[in-house]
Amino acid sequence: MTNRIQQDGMFHRCRTAVSQYFPILSWLPAYRREDLVSDLLAGAIVAIMLVPQGMAYALLAGLPPQAGLYASIAPLIIYGVLGTSRTLAVGPVAIVSLLVASSVGALAESGSAEYVQLALALALLVGIIQVVMGLLRVGFMVNFLSHPVLTGFTSAAAIIIGFGQLKYVLGISLPRAEHFYETIIGLAERVEETNWVTLAIGVGSIAILFYFKLGVSKQLQRWGIVGSTAAALAKTAPFVVVLLGALLVWGLQLNEGAGVRIVGDVPSGLPPLTLPPLNMAVWRMLLPSALAISFVGYMESISVAKSLASKRRQKVDPNQELIALGAANLGAMLTGGYPVAGGIGRSAVNFAAGARTGLASMITAVLMALSVIFLVPLFYFLPQAVLASIIIVAVSGMVDVKTFRHVWRYNKADGLSLIVTFFAVLTIGVEMGILAGAGAALLLFIWRTSQPHVAVVGQLEGSEIYRNVLRHDVRTCPKAAAVRIDGSLYFANCKALEETILGIMADQPHVEHIVLIGTAINAIDASALETLESLNDELKDAGITLHLAAIKGPVLDKLQSIGFVDHIGASQIHETTHGAMKVIGCV
Amino acid sequence: MTNRIQQDGMFHRCRTAVSQYFPILSWLPAYRREDLVSDLLAGAIVAIMLVPQGMAYALLAGLPPQAGLYASIAPLIIYGVLGTSRTLAVGPVAIVSLLVASSVGALAESGSAEYVQLALALALLVGIIQVVMGLLRVGFMVNFLSHPVLTGFTSAAAIIIGFGQLKYVLGISLPRAEHFYETIIGLAERVEETNWVTLAIGVGSIAILFYFKLGVSKQLQRWGIVGSTAAALAKTAPFVVVLLGALLVWGLQLNEGAGVRIVGDVPSGLPPLTLPPLNMAVWRMLLPSALAISFVGYMESISVAKSLASKRRQKVDPNQELIALGAANLGAMLTGGYPVAGGIGRSAVNFAAGARTGLASMITAVLMALSVIFLVPLFYFLPQAVLASIIIVAVSGMVDVKTFRHVWRYNKADGLSLIVTFFAVLTIGVEMGILAGAGAALLLFIWRTSQPHVAVVGQLEGSEIYRNVLRHDVRTCPKAAAVRIDGSLYFANCKALEETILGIMADQPHVEHIVLIGTAINAIDASALETLESLNDELKDAGITLHLAAIKGPVLDKLQSIGFVDHIGASQIHETTHGAMKVIGCV
Repeated sequence: MTNRIQQDGMFHRCRTAVSQYFPILSWLPAYRREDLVSDLLAGAIVAIMLVPQGMAYALLAGLPPQAGLYASIAPLIIYGVLGTSRTLAVGPVAIVSLLVASSVGALAESGSAEYVQLALALALLVGIIQVVMGLLRVGFMVNFLSHPVLTGFTSAAAIIIGFGQLKYVLGISLPRAEHFYETIIGLAERVEETNWVTLAIGVGSIAILFYFKLGVSKQLQRWGIVGSTAAALAKTAPFVVVLLGALLVWGLQLNEGAGVRIVGDVPSGLPPLTLPPLNMAVWRMLLPSALAISFVGYMESISVAKSLASKRRQKVDPNQELIALGAANLGAMLTGGYPVAGGIGRSAVNFAAGARTGLASMITAVLMALSVIFLVPLFYFLPQAVLASIIIVAVSGMVDVKTFRHVWRYNKADGLSLIVTFFAVLTIGVEMGILAGAGAALLLFIWRTSQPHVAVVGQLEGSEIYRNVLRHDVRTCPKAAAVRIDGSLYFANCKALEETILGIMADQPHVEHIVLIGTAINAIDASALETLESLNDELKDAGITLHLAAIKGPVLDKLQSIGFVDHIGASQIHETTHGAMKVIGCV
Repeated sequence: MTNRIQQDGMFHRCRTAVSQYFPILSWLPAYRREDLVSDLLAGAIVAIMLVPQGMAYALLAGLPPQAGLYASIAPLIIYGVLGTSRTLAVGPVAIVSLLVASSVGALAESGSAEYVQLALALALLVGIIQVVMGLLRVGFMVNFLSHPVLTGFTSAAAIIIGFGQLKYVLGISLPRAEHFYETIIGLAERVEETNWVTLAIGVGSIAILFYFKLGVSKQLQRWGIVGSTAAALAKTAPFVVVLLGALLVWGLQLNEGAGVRIVGDVPSGLPPLTLPPLNMAVWRMLLPSALAISFVGYMESISVAKSLASKRRQKVDPNQELIALGAANLGAMLTGGYPVAGGIGRSAVNFAAGARTGLASMITAVLMALSVIFLVPLFYFLPQAVLASIIIVAVSGMVDVKTFRHVWRYNKADGLSLIVTFFAVLTIGVEMGILAGAGAALLLFIWRTSQPHVAVVGQLEGSEIYRNVLRHDVRTCPKAAAVRIDGSLYFANCKALEETILGIMADQPHVEHIVLIGTAINAIDASALETLESLNDELKDAGITLHLAAIKGPVLDKLQSIGFVDHIGASQIHETTHGAMKVIGCV
């Protein structure tokens, strides 16, 4: 009997573990028929967006257009099984494509077989990094990238991407640029070679896309179509311009007549089974980029997944999301794709169109597979300028001046780390730039906390309350200085604390007692402990007694356990500031 | 008349600025005759220590012995003029010498003219870095090196130094080792070539030094010599073993008879005027090492300077100390020396022997100059084993197992950063090792603060006090969750905060209000502000109202100025937790 219960218990634990790693098991058994309609509609609308976006982002990454379509099949099915978000739309995204272009582009010629192979290797590394981070449950590490750093990075990346597409809109040939300024110089030098027909197609396409983005939704509502459906229909714009563009070029034979560059032959049929090169030297070279893509792709995915889930009181598990994204990348690696992430725009559409479960993602995948088989020949005449215009419009919203103003007004240090990241990405490149930005943010954080706010306090007449002597009319005691430290003590600020206390000691020769008030001290690390110990000794040598007052329970427990309370003397530890002042004889 | 007052005012300000940068002006005018006796005695005792130490550390740095003596003259005079510590004893120190050996050793052959030139270039760079950091008042940057990282670094460096000297004690020849393991392998392979006479001298010298260190002070006190004088006399041990060693080798002609390696010719006379090579490529290669030396040398100096100053209720100015040390290094560069710092042992002796002002440092310098002129010929027969034994005994106290145990018991994360630094220094080298350690400490700090302690609180029956529901028997309200966050909100922990709140929302479907209690929030950075904004929107979407209670004045001011208070609604901001619960209707 006991055995039976134990087995049941094990079975239960086992089942819990399985459904933790396979979230599909938590929604599939409870799947209802009415969910299917929503999931079908959402999946279809995302697929309509994804066909042109997939091809466009693949070109941005320096890959043939089919790589973007292939990356929109297997990864989406895998994410549907493993993802904890019900609405995240995984696939090729702009920023990751830029990172692929900048890292693989430095190692191989765009369009070469080697280039495609390196993109697969990158997907493998990203997949491994994300899965391992998820299994180790160290998703918190992405916290290193602060919001201002990400904003600065995204804005600069959007500018690099946008200007990089201008050559397609202008219809001019430019070699791949290693640095942003080379793109600008190249464009300026060759602007007179502009192909005017291409430019007209590109500008027309941009105009249509912006009209859909800004005006069409209201127009549709005026025609009596409800808001959410109207918004979803507005998102089909890329598909519309792709069809119009292809028809126009085919109808007027602009590719031959006017030299408009077209996408050309895209092989149709399901993705091939692929494997990246097993070359340690290559992997080592790609590793820094793979880390950047893993972090940036995950940050983008998790933030949109969380925000959408909370709208329905659902929850996403950050570490399981890492595993799911990593597995999706491994799927991309095996099926001729390249690194993927959760897209912000498509996920929002998926959510708005009513996606209920991961089945929506799988439906998108099936439709993408059908597109690769049947639709691809239609894109032969698709002008590259149209794909470029889709990218330009997509990234135009990512240059975030509003956030910069907001952050700068709120906190100069945060604003500075945004600016540093922005200009570092534009000047030294996307990967080194984000690294420099993260480093700057850490330095500024250390600097900001290296001087904790310290207030000398006095007694509010007739009360047991002690307030800053500089802000309140309070009574102080000549022989004792009561000092409140507004911050946790750790290695970066303990020297400043020591200086402050020793400064008080040197400046006020009559002081016999110094009371440290710990109401705002949430933690004391080993460096700060050592500082407190030496401070105590130094004060003792100078004939001054150190007191601690109002130290929080957990902090005091630790000080007790390491023997610091005995070291300083238990009679010097006080429950409250007032209690300390009483013992000293000031009140 | 007004003009006169203005001029006086300007004169006064000007004088203040001058005496800020030249601390000698604050003590020299008030110099008293009785100070002179103390300064003379202290200066002399330090000089007696410094003659053998200077030569020994120069050899450790891979330089000829006179470089250590030269580095003990001009830098000490400059520090006496510019230093704010009255007792810091500047000159060659062990750790900096090791860093010089590891950086210059990788670029030139030890003993070559190029090597000496590179050491001068290093002193120039260290001097410039320190002076500039001091003038920019960015001394806080050294706070990046936490106490555990420094302990791990120092312990590992001491082991590398100690084992590096063993070849001199054993009297065997070994090529310079790039890595620590090469030293160990080299010693193991050649141990049978040991010169037994050399070994006897070395071991005897170590025994005498340890006896002086541990036993002689008590012996002297038993003979009626007072404690501090006895302690000071005990510090003359290196000088004693140097004299004994030189006499022994000279008397028995052990250098020729038994093959004991001696120091040999050391040029006598004052230091030459020197200039480092003006070669940008060289400077760029030395820059990382120069940064490490600047930081480590300054950390060592400032910690001992502060600790000694506080014993007499004096104060040191950290930024002026950077300027003084930097200028001392520039002095070393001009006079055939190499990078210097404040020594822990010698400064303690200087203090104990009664040094009152910077004059003690200048007296040491004058005696060192006299030594270079008159004493140096006596050291011809000095065995290298004796100098090695001085180094070994000096660094033996630097392996700090006690601090490791203490730190490990107190805080595992700090203990881990100590271990990482220790093993990184031993395996990948001194400079990369300390960098890796500092990086690990930062990572661990972010990890530690990435999950702020969050407590759901309830009302203590019949009071206005709210306490953790897990620790106290408190009353909670089904429709509101009150959450206290024990830590400042910044980029590394705002995601965790969001997850916690969204988790409460998802787990407790009946909750209509969430109250964030800010008693322990000392700051909110831009990332956290953004998180609060999106959290507020997400909660609103889910039909939940977000409240803030007991936010500190300065934090609330900032939230107000950026419009967050209006965004969330001024009626959702409450002075106290109890006030919030009243408005919600829970009490």
